[in-house]
Amino acid sequence: MLSGNSYRLLNWKAWKNIRKFCSNPRKVPELTKDRYPVTRGQYAELSSDDISKFEGIVGKGRMIVNPVDVEPHNIDFIGCVRGYSRVVLKPKTTQQVSEILKYCNSRKIAVCPQGGNTGLVGGSVPVFDEVILSTQNMNEIETIDQVSGILVCQSGCILEQLDEKAHENGLCMPLDLGAKGSCHIGGNVSTNAGGLRLLRYGNLHGSVLGVEVVKADGTVLDLMSNFKKDNTGYHLKHLFIGSEGTLGIITKVAIFCPTASKAVNLAFLGVENYENVMKTFLQAKQELGEILSACEMIDAESLKCSTKPFNKSSPIADYPFYMLIETSGSNAEHDEEKLHNFLNNSMNSGIVLDGTTTNESKKMRDIWFLRERIAPGILMDGFCFKYDLSLPLKQFYDIVPAMTERVGSLATRVCGYGHIGDSNLHLNVSCPEFTQEIYKRVEPFVYEFTHKLKGSVSAEHGIGFLKPNYLKYSKGPEALDLMQQMKTLLDPNGILNPYKVLPKRL
Amino acid sequence: MLSGNSYRLLNWKAWKNIRKFCSNPRKVPELTKDRYPVTRGQYAELSSDDISKFEGIVGKGRMIVNPVDVEPHNIDFIGCVRGYSRVVLKPKTTQQVSEILKYCNSRKIAVCPQGGNTGLVGGSVPVFDEVILSTQNMNEIETIDQVSGILVCQSGCILEQLDEKAHENGLCMPLDLGAKGSCHIGGNVSTNAGGLRLLRYGNLHGSVLGVEVVKADGTVLDLMSNFKKDNTGYHLKHLFIGSEGTLGIITKVAIFCPTASKAVNLAFLGVENYENVMKTFLQAKQELGEILSACEMIDAESLKCSTKPFNKSSPIADYPFYMLIETSGSNAEHDEEKLHNFLNNSMNSGIVLDGTTTNESKKMRDIWFLRERIAPGILMDGFCFKYDLSLPLKQFYDIVPAMTERVGSLATRVCGYGHIGDSNLHLNVSCPEFTQEIYKRVEPFVYEFTHKLKGSVSAEHGIGFLKPNYLKYSKGPEALDLMQQMKTLLDPNGILNPYKVLPKRL
Repeated sequence: MLSGNSYRLLNWKAWKNIRKFCSNPRKVPELTKDRYPVTRGQYAELSSDDISKFEGIVGKGRMIVNPVDVEPHNIDFIGCVRGYSRVVLKPKTTQQVSEILKYCNSRKIAVCPQGGNTGLVGGSVPVFDEVILSTQNMNEIETIDQVSGILVCQSGCILEQLDEKAHENGLCMPLDLGAKGSCHIGGNVSTNAGGLRLLRYGNLHGSVLGVEVVKADGTVLDLMSNFKKDNTGYHLKHLFIGSEGTLGIITKVAIFCPTASKAVNLAFLGVENYENVMKTFLQAKQELGEILSACEMIDAESLKCSTKPFNKSSPIADYPFYMLIETSGSNAEHDEEKLHNFLNNSMNSGIVLDGTTTNESKKMRDIWFLRERIAPGILMDGFCFKYDLSLPLKQFYDIVPAMTERVGSLATRVCGYGHIGDSNLHLNVSCPEFTQEIYKRVEPFVYEFTHKLKGSVSAEHGIGFLKPNYLKYSKGPEALDLMQQMKTLLDPNGILNPYKVLPKRL
Repeated sequence: MLSGNSYRLLNWKAWKNIRKFCSNPRKVPELTKDRYPVTRGQYAELSSDDISKFEGIVGKGRMIVNPVDVEPHNIDFIGCVRGYSRVVLKPKTTQQVSEILKYCNSRKIAVCPQGGNTGLVGGSVPVFDEVILSTQNMNEIETIDQVSGILVCQSGCILEQLDEKAHENGLCMPLDLGAKGSCHIGGNVSTNAGGLRLLRYGNLHGSVLGVEVVKADGTVLDLMSNFKKDNTGYHLKHLFIGSEGTLGIITKVAIFCPTASKAVNLAFLGVENYENVMKTFLQAKQELGEILSACEMIDAESLKCSTKPFNKSSPIADYPFYMLIETSGSNAEHDEEKLHNFLNNSMNSGIVLDGTTTNESKKMRDIWFLRERIAPGILMDGFCFKYDLSLPLKQFYDIVPAMTERVGSLATRVCGYGHIGDSNLHLNVSCPEFTQEIYKRVEPFVYEFTHKLKGSVSAEHGIGFLKPNYLKYSKGPEALDLMQQMKTLLDPNGILNPYKVLPKRL
């Protein structure tokens, strides 16, 4: 059983703690180059001159070369991939990022940008020996304006700290995710992170008002804006939102923060079958309307991951499915009345079998714990294949029984949970350790299944290192060609986050 | 005085009606090539073979060549620019659009894409003799899903008709603008239209889930998605949102429709000065929170435009500023209570001097009339220079008195109104007719003023033909270079909507 003072555990320290309880304690993953079929590009090898040059740019205290200290930056959060970079650069300013990239581009040295390193597709660690450019030191909040709701900050600010700052000004960040205690806003924007409140506040293409980006050749692109409306020319910033650091490195962000809600309520419901989960969502949309801020589904197998290993229990009896429904609004009394009516109606009609509601912070934290610890809880099975799919609501859950049947006893567990309010399922297949046998059973089956339903093979996690070959299941050849043209235009030497996002050119 | 059965008048017919009451009735604007310094590009002149080829692609009933019928497609809504195209093509399918562009690209024939032709920056009509490609016949709604809220349609669907369809399914379109009775969704997306409800539902980069686009060479790019979350590779669709038909022609759109509100309330307020307008907005944000769906400001001079010529009167006495505040929510009783409390508080504190509220359709229409007829009302002065600026809230209104002083008696009227909730001011300078003297007094002054405040020289109207030279006031040379590179990559022959958006290459 894990203990910890922090409500949010998804940071590096927590990961190390969790791994202690895995079936293979202390075992670091194989090197990526050995586990996956990938060939190093024709990039320069680092020389001692390069290291000196880097030190000259960032200053002594802002470079890590000690292998023990570099190691956490080489391994991803879920312990799936491992690179062998020798150096981590931690610049403080845009100018330093610009000088690093200008130099690397001229020398053809590959660079892996890294934020909080909480990504789930191997996008934030090097594949081979790429120089790691961490945004850790770029953590200044420039301005926050209470009236317009606009926050401007450097890209290395931690999401949770930004949210605290926003709340001090009567505002909130428009995104929230399990990793908020560690992830950087620059990483969120680069990966177009979704999370728990997308349902309410929309995606980052809507919320991000401006970015400052350093291109591969060191050019600083000022795409900042302090306004919600700015139709001056092509909307270039979106090229960098969700391109996972392969087209440029985001150094600054302007983001719109909505007004913070004065009242928050949480309901945890037990539901008999998936059909009723969907009906409950539709009813919540209709009856809770503008105050609905999260609508999550958890299947019984997923809930076991966040209860048993953490010695927690569910606040209601056992059901095949659970739903977590959050409301956020400006008037506690109104919101409670709406939620009460919704629950009454859904229980009277029989689509919800049982439920509990609360507006007490402690109890709400306990309920969110059950949702947010599923991911770290599953890792305790040893190894986990994680999939993040957008699927039509009618067939949303079909893949879970299909996968269960397919992997049989090779898997410790197959479970599904996620943001049903946004049609986004997290499918997990866990096993004691990675084996080629189970890998081949799971992939490409999961992608073919998704493709048949015209779903997305990556709803919010991105493509990173693990999924470029599966892009074709969601994007046609014309779109892939244009992506490649964008890459060639913006990063002709291919130094930015190589081996990620785009499939290898044939 | 105008009369009309239609609530929304901003369509072509209405424009013609309005012009009858202008000081220069029936006078069509000068040809663009004569009024503005612009040189025709090296494009092919249309031959009779070309016309035959086009007819072969679209079919006889879908091509206009009669000069009288072509004329309305050559003149923009505000009568500012006029081209002399000989032909309007009205394809029905993506395949036809593809064939037209493939042919035009091979022949180097310039093409002007046109939706509802309600744009305000001269972007939707030809500058010289470009072939007009109208989306008028591409008006099919493919699907609308009540549970997920996703609507898929062709790009020529009229916004108001989509909104009606959405309401039949308990949903609403996430954008609303004065021109909704005429504008096409493809035009809305191509220009990243903002409008009245951006405050509530965010911008189109957030709401549009997918687009189908035909590139200049005829390639069909399938960037459709039926999901709110889809992180599969670069987010290319955003290149076409807001690029005003210069990078490709949008033929299909998937858009997320929020749940329709069961209750709508409207307040019309009188305010003493701009300082209190800003305070009222902040208080509305805080007290109305999630139900605030529009927050508009109208100065006294603007209100005269929508009252006097239409023989209407204000529901309250005369004040220097007026505000229109709309709430939309799922519970009428709750919403009325919130609005009532907000009004009580703002009147007790003295920031609002007078006000009226209503939830009756007829009265709400009357109030919205006062806001939406300002634009057509101003046109009755003869000619109008229209500016659409994002400005910091603290200095939001400063430009109105500054411009009034600058133009002096040359102008009939200088007035400001707009979406204060989104920091977006519509500045208007009207005069009996266009003269170089007043033009030079107004520009580039307005852009320099905006630049000093780090504002946007085009908040929602776009750049079109009228503003490319002023892009530099909001975007730096690195961004402009990258825009030009995008244009060259996607439309190497420059056939798509030439002379628009990008400044002329030096």
